[in-house]
Amino acid sequence: MTSSSADPSTLARQLPAGVLVTDPDILAGYRHDRAFDPDAAVPLAVVRATSTADVQTALRWAHENRVPVVPRGAGTSLSGGSGGLAGGIVLSTEKMRDITIDPATRTAVAGPGLLNAEVKAAAADHGLWYPPDPSSFEICSIGGNAATNAGGLCCVKYGVTSDYVLGLEVVLADGTAVRLGGPRLKDVAGLSLTKLFVGSEGTLGVITEVTLRLIPPQPPASTMVATFGSVEAAAAAVIAITATLRPAMLEFMDRTTINAVEDALRMDLDRGAEAMLIARSDAPGPAAAHEIEVMVRACRDAGAHDVFDTADPDEGEAFTAARRMAIPAVERLGSLLLEDVGVPLPMLPALVAGVAEIADLNAVTVAVIAHAGDGNTHPLIVYDPADEKMTERAHVAFGQIMDLAIDLGGTITGEHGVGRLKKPWLPAQVGPDVMALTRLIKNALDPRSILNPGAVL
Amino acid sequence: MTSSSADPSTLARQLPAGVLVTDPDILAGYRHDRAFDPDAAVPLAVVRATSTADVQTALRWAHENRVPVVPRGAGTSLSGGSGGLAGGIVLSTEKMRDITIDPATRTAVAGPGLLNAEVKAAAADHGLWYPPDPSSFEICSIGGNAATNAGGLCCVKYGVTSDYVLGLEVVLADGTAVRLGGPRLKDVAGLSLTKLFVGSEGTLGVITEVTLRLIPPQPPASTMVATFGSVEAAAAAVIAITATLRPAMLEFMDRTTINAVEDALRMDLDRGAEAMLIARSDAPGPAAAHEIEVMVRACRDAGAHDVFDTADPDEGEAFTAARRMAIPAVERLGSLLLEDVGVPLPMLPALVAGVAEIADLNAVTVAVIAHAGDGNTHPLIVYDPADEKMTERAHVAFGQIMDLAIDLGGTITGEHGVGRLKKPWLPAQVGPDVMALTRLIKNALDPRSILNPGAVL
Repeated sequence: MTSSSADPSTLARQLPAGVLVTDPDILAGYRHDRAFDPDAAVPLAVVRATSTADVQTALRWAHENRVPVVPRGAGTSLSGGSGGLAGGIVLSTEKMRDITIDPATRTAVAGPGLLNAEVKAAAADHGLWYPPDPSSFEICSIGGNAATNAGGLCCVKYGVTSDYVLGLEVVLADGTAVRLGGPRLKDVAGLSLTKLFVGSEGTLGVITEVTLRLIPPQPPASTMVATFGSVEAAAAAVIAITATLRPAMLEFMDRTTINAVEDALRMDLDRGAEAMLIARSDAPGPAAAHEIEVMVRACRDAGAHDVFDTADPDEGEAFTAARRMAIPAVERLGSLLLEDVGVPLPMLPALVAGVAEIADLNAVTVAVIAHAGDGNTHPLIVYDPADEKMTERAHVAFGQIMDLAIDLGGTITGEHGVGRLKKPWLPAQVGPDVMALTRLIKNALDPRSILNPGAVL
Repeated sequence: MTSSSADPSTLARQLPAGVLVTDPDILAGYRHDRAFDPDAAVPLAVVRATSTADVQTALRWAHENRVPVVPRGAGTSLSGGSGGLAGGIVLSTEKMRDITIDPATRTAVAGPGLLNAEVKAAAADHGLWYPPDPSSFEICSIGGNAATNAGGLCCVKYGVTSDYVLGLEVVLADGTAVRLGGPRLKDVAGLSLTKLFVGSEGTLGVITEVTLRLIPPQPPASTMVATFGSVEAAAAAVIAITATLRPAMLEFMDRTTINAVEDALRMDLDRGAEAMLIARSDAPGPAAAHEIEVMVRACRDAGAHDVFDTADPDEGEAFTAARRMAIPAVERLGSLLLEDVGVPLPMLPALVAGVAEIADLNAVTVAVIAHAGDGNTHPLIVYDPADEKMTERAHVAFGQIMDLAIDLGGTITGEHGVGRLKKPWLPAQVGPDVMALTRLIKNALDPRSILNPGAVL
C-alpha cells in the first residue's frame, strides 16, 4: 500500500527542534502499545508534536512521501491500534496537553495528550464531571479515548466517549486541519463528521483537539454486591435490573475471576460462587436507597446466594476496587490475551458457557469479567508466553471467542477498538457490503492510505 | 448534476402494484413538507415503498437513469429537506411501519414510517421509554427523526435521536442495502457509520429500518415556572441550574410568546414578564423535590419575579402544554418562518437582543422560544404572506438571524436540519475545508448525486 524511501531528516528540518526523534533507545519505546503485538515494529522516527502545526507538517510530509503514519496518544491500546510500523513514523500527541474549562457552557477544550484522569480532575476543579471511565483512565489519553470511542464502568448509565465529544480539531491525511462541531450541545448543521471521526482509530485523520461535554458532578454512590450459583441466574438479575432502572455501574465477575481477586486481595469473597454482580446507584438523596432495594430484590428473585449492600461510599469503593483489580489479579496467573466481545444481554450465559468450552478445548484458562449492563464482556485468556504451543492455543481461543460472539449476534469489540489484532474478524461481523462502504470512505479521505495502515482495514 | 428523461412507468413495472404513484392529485400532496418552500415542485412520481426491496428497486432505477430522489418520512421537515423536485421522484417510507420490541435487550426495531408517538407507545406497552420528543412527535416519523437527528424538549437530560440509534438498515445510492450497528449497547467494530447516517438528511442513503435503544420509564415529573424582568436574568438562572443538576426539561419563552400563549389559553401568565422558564425534574422519589428546590433557588437568586412549583403532574403538564402551544399560538399572528439557531448558553441574551434588533430593522414580529438548557432557540418570524414586501423582509430577517448565530459561535440548526432553506448559510458556519470534506464523503457514497440533491449541499 505504502512504502517509504523518504529520509526523516527532511521532515526534522521542517519541525521545531527536538520534535522529531530518531534515537533508537527512544524509538524502541514506541514499538508496542499495551496489546504487545509481536508484529509491531520499531518505527523509522517518532514525531512528538507540540502543536496542530507540527501534526500538519508531519502529515504533509508523509502524504507527499507516502510514508505510513501511526497516530498515538498514550499508547495504551489493547487492540494493537498504536503499535509501530517498519518504515513508518509514529505521530504522538502526548505533548499536546492544554485544557480550558468553560463552566457556563459546561465544556472542556482539551489537547489530545491529556490523560483521561487529568480531564476529570480539571473538570472537578470547576465542580463538573467528565464521566467516561475506561479502567485505564489514569494512563490513557483523551485523544486515544476519542479515537477509539472508549467505554468504561459508568457507561451503562452515562454513555461512552462519543456521547461526550461535541467537537474535534482533526488533521486530515494531506495536512489540512478542520474544525468539526464545537461547544454547542445541539448542532445538526451538516453531516455528523465529529461522530464519524470518533472511533475511527486514526484511520481517517489525527485528532489534535477535543471539545467535551461536562455534566454536574456525580452524587455519592451506594453499592450492592450479589453472588450466584449460575451465570444464568446472574444474567436474569441483570436483565431484571436494567429493565427497571439505570444503575450507575453493573459489573460481572465469573468464578475464575472471583478466585483470582480473592487470591490477590483476601477480602472474603465467596470462592464457590459461579458469578458475582457489583452494582451502584448514584440516584440523588434517598432515591439511591430505593434503587439499591430494587436491585437487591431483583438479585434475590433471580436466586442470588448472598446479597450485600452499603450506602457507605468507602465500603462500596472496596468492591469497585475489587472489580478494577480483576485484570491485574488474573494477570498473576500468566500473560493475558484480552477480549472485548459484546453480546445482547440474553446471550450472556451462552457466551460465558461457550467461552468455558473454548477454554477446555484449547487447554487454557479464561476468566470472564463484564460490564454486564451493556453486555460488553472481557474474557481474559491466560497463557504462558514461554510455552510456544500454549501461546498458539491461546491465539486460537482468541479467534474462537470472537467467532462465538459474532454467532450470538454480538460484536468483536465493545470499547477497545479493532486495531490490528481483531482486524481479521471485522469482515465476518459487518459483512462485505459494510466493508466496501468503509473502504469508500477511507479511500475518499486517505487516498494514499498513509493513516494507520493495517489497523481496522 | 442530475437530469431525468426516464419514464417512471419502467420503474412501476419493477415494483408491486400500487407502489409507484403518478396520480396528479396524490403527487400534489408530496410537493411540500412543513417548511412550505415555494421552490418545492410536484415530483414526477412518488414511490410509497412497502419494503426494503422496494427502496432498492427504486434506487437502482434512479441510479441507472440519474433521476433525483427525495427520501421522505412523514413530510414534517421544517427546513425543506423533503419537498418535491421537478423531474425527481419522492421515495416515501410512510408505509414501512413494522415494530418489534425486545424487552430483554431494551431495543426496538422499527420501520422508518412509524410515527415517533407510535414508537413511544409500543415501548410503553413493554414498560419501556423512547425519550426523544420533537414537538411534532405525534406526526413525525422515526425514519425522519433519524435522518435529521431530531431533538426535543427532554434532550437537555436525555440526549438527541443519535444517542438512541444503535443500528440502521440503509439503502445506498446504487441500491445496495447495508446493516449498520445493531441491538448492541456498546459496539466499536469499524467506523461509526451508524452515526454518520444519522443526521445525513437523506443525502447519503435511505433509512429502511432503525434499531433504537429504550430505557426504563420516566418517573412522574415535578414542575417549576419562573418569570423574569430580563432575558439576562433568565439566562443566568439557566446557567446556574445546569451547572448543578440535569433538569428533565428547561424551556424558555420571551415576552411576545408569553403574550401569544396567554391570548390563546387564558391561563393567567404574567404578560409583563420579559422571560419565562419552565423546568421539570423527574429525579426518582423525594429527589425531585430537592431538584425543584435547587432550581427555584437559582431562579430567585437570578432575580426572578415570580416562581411557582408543583409536584402534581397534571398541574405541571398545563405549563408544558403552554410551551408546546407556543408555536400554534404565535402562528395566530401570521405565517411563520421558523428558526432553529443554537448558541453557547452565555450568548443567549445577546442572541435574544440581536433578534429583537433584526425584528425592528425589518419591521416584523419575532417571538423567541428555546430549549434553554441546550442553548437551542426557535425565533419565530411572523409575516403576512399576502404582503409581498413583508414576506421579503421576513426572509431577510431569517438570514440575518442565522448570520447572528454564527457570529455568536453558534449553529444555524440545532435539531431541524439544514434542508434546502438553510443550505446557503452552511458554508459560513463550517467553513470551506469542512464543506470540501463533506463533498468528499458525499461523492464517494453518491457519485451521481441522485440522493436529495439540493439539500444540505
